[in-house]
Amino acid sequence: MTYCVGLRLSKGLVFMSDTRTNAGVDDISQTKKMHSWEAPGERVITLLSAGNLATTQAVVSLLDERSKAPGDRNPSILAAPSMFQVARIVGNTLRDVVTQYEEAGPTAASPFAATLILGGQIAGSAPRLFLIYPEGNFIEAGDDNPFFQSGEIKYGRPILERALDSEMSFEDAVKLLCVSFSSTILSNAGVDMPLDLQIHATNECRVTEERRFEREDPYFCEVSKGWSDALRDALAALPEFSF
Amino acid sequence: MTYCVGLRLSKGLVFMSDTRTNAGVDDISQTKKMHSWEAPGERVITLLSAGNLATTQAVVSLLDERSKAPGDRNPSILAAPSMFQVARIVGNTLRDVVTQYEEAGPTAASPFAATLILGGQIAGSAPRLFLIYPEGNFIEAGDDNPFFQSGEIKYGRPILERALDSEMSFEDAVKLLCVSFSSTILSNAGVDMPLDLQIHATNECRVTEERRFEREDPYFCEVSKGWSDALRDALAALPEFSF
Repeated sequence: MTYCVGLRLSKGLVFMSDTRTNAGVDDISQTKKMHSWEAPGERVITLLSAGNLATTQAVVSLLDERSKAPGDRNPSILAAPSMFQVARIVGNTLRDVVTQYEEAGPTAASPFAATLILGGQIAGSAPRLFLIYPEGNFIEAGDDNPFFQSGEIKYGRPILERALDSEMSFEDAVKLLCVSFSSTILSNAGVDMPLDLQIHATNECRVTEERRFEREDPYFCEVSKGWSDALRDALAALPEFSF
Repeated sequence: MTYCVGLRLSKGLVFMSDTRTNAGVDDISQTKKMHSWEAPGERVITLLSAGNLATTQAVVSLLDERSKAPGDRNPSILAAPSMFQVARIVGNTLRDVVTQYEEAGPTAASPFAATLILGGQIAGSAPRLFLIYPEGNFIEAGDDNPFFQSGEIKYGRPILERALDSEMSFEDAVKLLCVSFSSTILSNAGVDMPLDLQIHATNECRVTEERRFEREDPYFCEVSKGWSDALRDALAALPEFSF
């Protein structure tokens, strides 16, 4: 399992992903699910991956190769003229990889599918955030849907639905994400620390902030423990029921 | 979809279930998923059902017939000597119904499976709470796992994990359940009002309290609206993050 979130705030884009990967509960390891490409000042692109690890790693490797070989930059996510075109390249790459393994050869018990959250900005255009399906098509975040989740989305969703505000600061967004991830980690053993965080401040066109929250991160632990108490207090403050 | 919860508190058992049933998002209706059998003072049994509606209605009808025909009370949930035996009867009935439709005849797009929460008390024994699987086997709640959910369990689970206390009052439990159901209803259109509530106070061996929360129930609306504000306040009160 996996949990990834991308937020579209007016101040910029915020990304968080866990690092737990598993093939059954008896085969658990750690892998980074957050990948970035940058031409600082000109463009920044971040990709969060959930789903079959072989699929998502193949997608990232293919995107890497395309962005690194100058003579073969078409289609390259570092040369695409818009984030929409970047999303198309990523979506097509994902679809090609999934199709390759689904169509021929031995089949696996778990599907080859993956879902990606893609966000970034190209100088001169606004930051954009996309959710890319295994079929290669995608949807975009907007004022009505300012965030995307992938993987184990349910446990951590209510707090996002209730508390996310597009005008919030990056600091408040990180706090909110820590709560959302904490609730998810508490309920699903397939999501776990460390967590990767990345921020693209609007119009900087670079990775403005990047941080890994390790298992014993003092801030995360404080939020996680504090949230249980805060919820109990919040519950206590609600009107009493009487029969 | 469906959302049902059974709580095992030291003061007694608390049950809540929604009433939304649907066959696709374009075929929605309302049905009660909470069923009770009572011999007041001697025993009380409550069943919450999630899953295929034809299956759960057949199970309830079969249990009804068995409990109502005095000459044919074996196996009857009103004559069984223990809640464990009641759970076996209910589990076997469920398995028989599921098996009947799975084994022969046309197959349906949605499975015939259902999951049941069963709770109750027989005078002289402690109250017991079970989760019964479609296969007919079941697990019991205890001090380490004082609640069961069925149906759409994820959105409403974090608050139960964090705030449920086996020593809490029935009033606080109802408040907690209203929050858990509110979060679920907000995120899954397959769960909706009205909600049914029932309470078995320990050693009363009867339905002590019963209530339906209609769509415009003032208490539920107050809790649901108040919870969003309370969460934002709770979030604000957590320590600030800084880069």
